[in-house]
Amino acid sequence: MSSQKEIQLVKIIETVPSLRSWRKQFIKQDKEVAFVPTMGSLHEGHLNLVKQASERCPIVVVSIFVNPAQFGPSEDLDNYPRTLSKDLELLRSLNCVDTVFLPKVKDIYPSGIPLEIEKQKGTFVEVKGKSHQLEGISRPLFFRGVSTVVAKLFNIVQPNHVFFGQKDAQQCIVVRTLISDLHFPIEMHVGATKREYDGLAMSSRNQYLTPELRNYAITLYNALTAIKNELDKGKRNREILLRKGYEIVEEAARKVKEKNLGFELRLDYLSLADPSTLEELQEIEEGKGAILSGALYVGKTRLIDNLLFNCTL
Amino acid sequence: MSSQKEIQLVKIIETVPSLRSWRKQFIKQDKEVAFVPTMGSLHEGHLNLVKQASERCPIVVVSIFVNPAQFGPSEDLDNYPRTLSKDLELLRSLNCVDTVFLPKVKDIYPSGIPLEIEKQKGTFVEVKGKSHQLEGISRPLFFRGVSTVVAKLFNIVQPNHVFFGQKDAQQCIVVRTLISDLHFPIEMHVGATKREYDGLAMSSRNQYLTPELRNYAITLYNALTAIKNELDKGKRNREILLRKGYEIVEEAARKVKEKNLGFELRLDYLSLADPSTLEELQEIEEGKGAILSGALYVGKTRLIDNLLFNCTL
Repeated sequence: MSSQKEIQLVKIIETVPSLRSWRKQFIKQDKEVAFVPTMGSLHEGHLNLVKQASERCPIVVVSIFVNPAQFGPSEDLDNYPRTLSKDLELLRSLNCVDTVFLPKVKDIYPSGIPLEIEKQKGTFVEVKGKSHQLEGISRPLFFRGVSTVVAKLFNIVQPNHVFFGQKDAQQCIVVRTLISDLHFPIEMHVGATKREYDGLAMSSRNQYLTPELRNYAITLYNALTAIKNELDKGKRNREILLRKGYEIVEEAARKVKEKNLGFELRLDYLSLADPSTLEELQEIEEGKGAILSGALYVGKTRLIDNLLFNCTL
Repeated sequence: MSSQKEIQLVKIIETVPSLRSWRKQFIKQDKEVAFVPTMGSLHEGHLNLVKQASERCPIVVVSIFVNPAQFGPSEDLDNYPRTLSKDLELLRSLNCVDTVFLPKVKDIYPSGIPLEIEKQKGTFVEVKGKSHQLEGISRPLFFRGVSTVVAKLFNIVQPNHVFFGQKDAQQCIVVRTLISDLHFPIEMHVGATKREYDGLAMSSRNQYLTPELRNYAITLYNALTAIKNELDKGKRNREILLRKGYEIVEEAARKVKEKNLGFELRLDYLSLADPSTLEELQEIEEGKGAILSGALYVGKTRLIDNLLFNCTL
């Protein structure tokens, strides 16, 4: 099989009916299918998920689809990095991807998908209780968009296993809840966050960063790491823990201002949340874990990151 | 096969894992599965759907599940008729049902399902643009509840074909949109409304009617039929058409009042709607169809019915 694969090109499928009919053969052959949904602009984090997928299942599907429903009207849908030929090259080089699914917006959203919520019609999926906090505060429709496209892609690809990255921690929790609540017959796997040499979490949005912005992008990871160090030292109180993080961001923001660099470093939030409910924790109880997460504006680019303490996603 | 079936008892399955493992054999055998979701309290309308299902597929699953998510806090969830042993007897007598799925509320809603919307957590599915009008006015969360449970049951049963009754016309349109938008690999079929000797649409809620109420329950069908007759005569104007229906309801309501029967006959709505958008029509254009529908309170019991003009669901 593997030597056959080496000379095979990756199959590109662009329509729902073609994907379905391609998928059908593996039902008959009783071969499990692994699925890695992406918005393209692939980096090491994605490639790592694809490798994990290929270790788990004989068949691997990667989708590349920039999902309009998870962008707000003032967000970066139009400018979101699209690097299809490079993405396909990367996926081919892995030598373990069977099919790349490249659906069109009108096929995924047959009822249309205008950015203004008042005009939106058709079927939407929402995970109540886990979508409104953290990322959901700045991006109120983000997880509705994620949940909706994930449900659609699951029904099209009908994977046995799906792979999501830890970097989007809340997304992992939302999708895990969706799989359980809607009874998708799918097993979910979370791949570790891939980081640059200095610890910056890999993200498609890092492409927006000029070298100057890039220098300060690491601030969020530094803040989270400082909090994690305090946790490792045995500190359990929210105020004490978060203060460490705020200090680091404030210092970096002050430097940016002093140096007159022409951009701003602005913290959106730092969070210390219960891994199962995503509620903010005042104290971390013994034997219980926490998700440390945050979002930082580096100029106009909004970056997120997280570290886990005594828990998995 | 059919002679084997005759001596087989209908299989009763109560858990999601058992249903899944039972279902699996038919994937391997490449046998199509038909699914009729019900809330029990079965009548001829349901049985007709089951018969259609068995004509379409070698395997037939019927679910009986009173879905809390489609009841409002002030609606009849607790009193909704539950007649399980009679239902099972009826299904056995059809001699074409393979499995009856009787899931528990806590299995279908792992995140719980309190009636108060503010307390609801977990995953919900909503068909925007087709859920807020008609039945959605009196019952604002009804179709969210229907869409959510239908998505769950589809993922559990994984049917190839599903069967819904025309009596719930808006539900048919909502589910058809959900199947298309979420890309469920399922074909939907709509069974005709079954009616009593006088035309009253069969409904589980007819059990609430005393003989006196039953006499007046036919009013809605009479009103819809009068409108349909005008359409057949060539009338196309909303006002002229609906007036016929209003007159019939008003006359019946007056009689109830005059006779001092101790209940009220109250029209909730009469509608003349576009079959694809469910928007109210002012004129029915040549070559275009319409859904005539309505809801009537007969005492405390709310009954619905519809007739189709030049369209299907």
